Amino acid sequence: MTDNLFEEMDRLFHPQNMAAVGAADRIGNMGISFLLGYQKCGFQGNLYAVNPKTKAKNFDTYDSVTDIPGPLDEVRVAVSAKFVPDVIRDCVKKGVRCVSIFTSGFRETGTDDGKAMESEIARIARKGGVRLIGPNCMGILCPESGMSIRADMPVMKDGSIGLISQSGGIAISLALACRERELGLSKVVSYGNESDLGAPEFLYYLARDPKTSVICLYIEGTGRAEDLVAALKDAAGKKPVIMVKGGMTDAGSRAATSHTGALTGASEIWNAIARQTGATLVADTEEMLDLAMLFTLKGSPPGKNLGIITISGGFGVIATDLVTKAGFDIPELAGQTQAALEKFIDVPGTSIQNPVDMAAKFFNYQAFPEIFPAFDRDPNIDAFLMICAVEYLTFLSSQADKFATFLVEAMIGAMDAMKKPTYVVLLHTISEDIRLKQERFFIEKGYPVFPTVQRCLTAMNRANRNGQS
Amino acid sequence: MTDNLFEEMDRLFHPQNMAAVGAADRIGNMGISFLLGYQKCGFQGNLYAVNPKTKAKNFDTYDSVTDIPGPLDEVRVAVSAKFVPDVIRDCVKKGVRCVSIFTSGFRETGTDDGKAMESEIARIARKGGVRLIGPNCMGILCPESGMSIRADMPVMKDGSIGLISQSGGIAISLALACRERELGLSKVVSYGNESDLGAPEFLYYLARDPKTSVICLYIEGTGRAEDLVAALKDAAGKKPVIMVKGGMTDAGSRAATSHTGALTGASEIWNAIARQTGATLVADTEEMLDLAMLFTLKGSPPGKNLGIITISGGFGVIATDLVTKAGFDIPELAGQTQAALEKFIDVPGTSIQNPVDMAAKFFNYQAFPEIFPAFDRDPNIDAFLMICAVEYLTFLSSQADKFATFLVEAMIGAMDAMKKPTYVVLLHTISEDIRLKQERFFIEKGYPVFPTVQRCLTAMNRANRNGQS
Repeated sequence: MTDNLFEEMDRLFHPQNMAAVGAADRIGNMGISFLLGYQKCGFQGNLYAVNPKTKAKNFDTYDSVTDIPGPLDEVRVAVSAKFVPDVIRDCVKKGVRCVSIFTSGFRETGTDDGKAMESEIARIARKGGVRLIGPNCMGILCPESGMSIRADMPVMKDGSIGLISQSGGIAISLALACRERELGLSKVVSYGNESDLGAPEFLYYLARDPKTSVICLYIEGTGRAEDLVAALKDAAGKKPVIMVKGGMTDAGSRAATSHTGALTGASEIWNAIARQTGATLVADTEEMLDLAMLFTLKGSPPGKNLGIITISGGFGVIATDLVTKAGFDIPELAGQTQAALEKFIDVPGTSIQNPVDMAAKFFNYQAFPEIFPAFDRDPNIDAFLMICAVEYLTFLSSQADKFATFLVEAMIGAMDAMKKPTYVVLLHTISEDIRLKQERFFIEKGYPVFPTVQRCLTAMNRANRNGQS
Repeated sequence: MTDNLFEEMDRLFHPQNMAAVGAADRIGNMGISFLLGYQKCGFQGNLYAVNPKTKAKNFDTYDSVTDIPGPLDEVRVAVSAKFVPDVIRDCVKKGVRCVSIFTSGFRETGTDDGKAMESEIARIARKGGVRLIGPNCMGILCPESGMSIRADMPVMKDGSIGLISQSGGIAISLALACRERELGLSKVVSYGNESDLGAPEFLYYLARDPKTSVICLYIEGTGRAEDLVAALKDAAGKKPVIMVKGGMTDAGSRAATSHTGALTGASEIWNAIARQTGATLVADTEEMLDLAMLFTLKGSPPGKNLGIITISGGFGVIATDLVTKAGFDIPELAGQTQAALEKFIDVPGTSIQNPVDMAAKFFNYQAFPEIFPAFDRDPNIDAFLMICAVEYLTFLSSQADKFATFLVEAMIGAMDAMKKPTYVVLLHTISEDIRLKQERFFIEKGYPVFPTVQRCLTAMNRANRNGQS
């Protein structure tokens, strides 16, 4: 990596102007989608359409990149593959800094023609001092600079999760899933075929980006294994790196080859890479985001001894099994804790053993500020698992939403006085709209929330192991 | 089991009149909640409140069960434990058929007093010819007869899933989770401490109930192991029985004892019971409902050779790994299938290998009626996995909801012409409200839908193994 790579990359994430080659006012046209996306996300610089055949209604349209007056640092390309080499030549002439190529039909086709064309555009760009992202990618999304990868995506929340994805679809899905849970993103990049910039450069950059606190990487394969391993080691030494490797099995590997044309490899190799570099290899994108959420919010790592608080004895029983199988302990509460609790949790149907079953006493919200800190002081417990079966919030059903919000606010008020990590499980039972609203509310206040006990435990276990292997 | 047990049980699920002892117009009062719940669910018989201290505004209120004029076959009890024995005596006098006791404070407290009081009410009831459900339970919910377990629950959809739960909270959560996914319920019962009727009787009944096509059982333990094993074997011989055992680990077992006072046991015993009886033991309630859904809808069991259809290559790659690890095969498509597909799926970025990556060609909905049946005819494939990344449905974002519905309708139209089982995965990415709406739409048309590939595979594997062990 060159000395000024950080500054070079940082400029790519903060362009002054952008032109979309191939933009046209047609549904499904990606050029216009990039332009409208930038506009929607508040991009401050000039936006140009490039299309010799038709003018875009709301953007200044030029026949070629070289016709654009004034400076231009970013170009997005969405024309047929055969036109791409000439577009890159124009970008070299124009002094463009970075070209993101959406167009597919290169190396990933597996054909000699596709490979040759990809080599050609890489050669033109390298010789001309232009950096390429792609081809076969969505490029960069960056909330702070107003860069977008699709007009129809909502504006993303600014935050600290950095996403690097070889697949465009997965970059989009991960970004949208973050938006759905109100998790903020620092930078997102879909880099596709890696003809020039790839995972090593983006890892290097995000590892040094002060806005990024955790890095998620979806990778299918690479022709630059040594660079990748070095970059993973460097990045994982600076902040958590969570990785999904697509194509871990032989069948998956074949699927990956036809998707991004990447050389993939056996799962043993990738497991070894994770061990060697300190990156955390997880099974799928859900686990990835669960863990990213945990790292960016309060309460990681959890330790081994858990206190479980539930309002449904049955879910407490199931959770106890899952927690134990996942390798955590559920120690008895200290005498002083039991003494403090029995003042409030005292009717038949409740339990002040661990798991603590609050049952109907959960609605005694005035007592939360005494109950929760009493748990927190227990010397036997490292962290807490609050298992909320949201259906209990349907009492007074016409008021369910308000009442749920009221209870969650009371919980958060009391939880804020706790010093130990607290994880919330909001079970998928009723009214997903109410559940999601409460989930976002907890997350906004810094508490990690999971829809199942199992997903919570998987993330907690990985957080405990991070950096220890 | 007696010869007329089915008729006896069937009458308990179809009472003519109901009285709630302890009903009062107070928030959180369970007696009034039962009455309002029955009213809300369209119960046709008379409803009475019993309370010597206060009158319920909208129900005829009597001091005692014996004061109620005319016949009475069902009583729900929600008074303090110490009053319960006298209530049961009154029910005997009145000739009540079934008493459900919500009240807790009996055997599950672990005290001698609690155990003695439970034995006493069981003795009074048995001697007087009254059947008991509970104590420490929610009793019966039955859409066809208008029986409810809580006023604040929505009216349940009538259907063919039967739920038996020792835990009231889990009965409620499972019922609500079914409602959320528009899965219909035949009968639900929460039976608590099993002082009289328990899992064996309810299994016997649901096994013979023509409305019930699959039985879900949540059990923490029993003092009647032989009856339970016999009833599981009998029921599993007639229809699928899916079981979650709470308290499989030592820690979980301790938690279960304080929850329902049941004698639980080592996981080896319960695994052996499942093997011996043909019941399917699953890990948690989510797996239970996933599998119940699969059994009640089209397409079970799936077989071993899967065809994967996706609109995102990355998710296809991840799915391929998960599918392979789960023990399924992803064979190459037959030549005739590839030939049929390449007419429609022909642009860069798509793939007609298995997994088939439709990419942007997914929006070519006019071709669905040709594409899907071409898959269906492939001799190498037993079943199909459709992986829909819903974010693709956000194109034209203001119209996202309508457009998604339009595409899903087009998919279902074409899928209906397929003969092999088809499973849908609607990934959790964006707009849970839109996702859930589409999920319900698929389920209503008979297609099982899962939010993750992993959950789909787990259910498919269990369906394949059902009855083969």
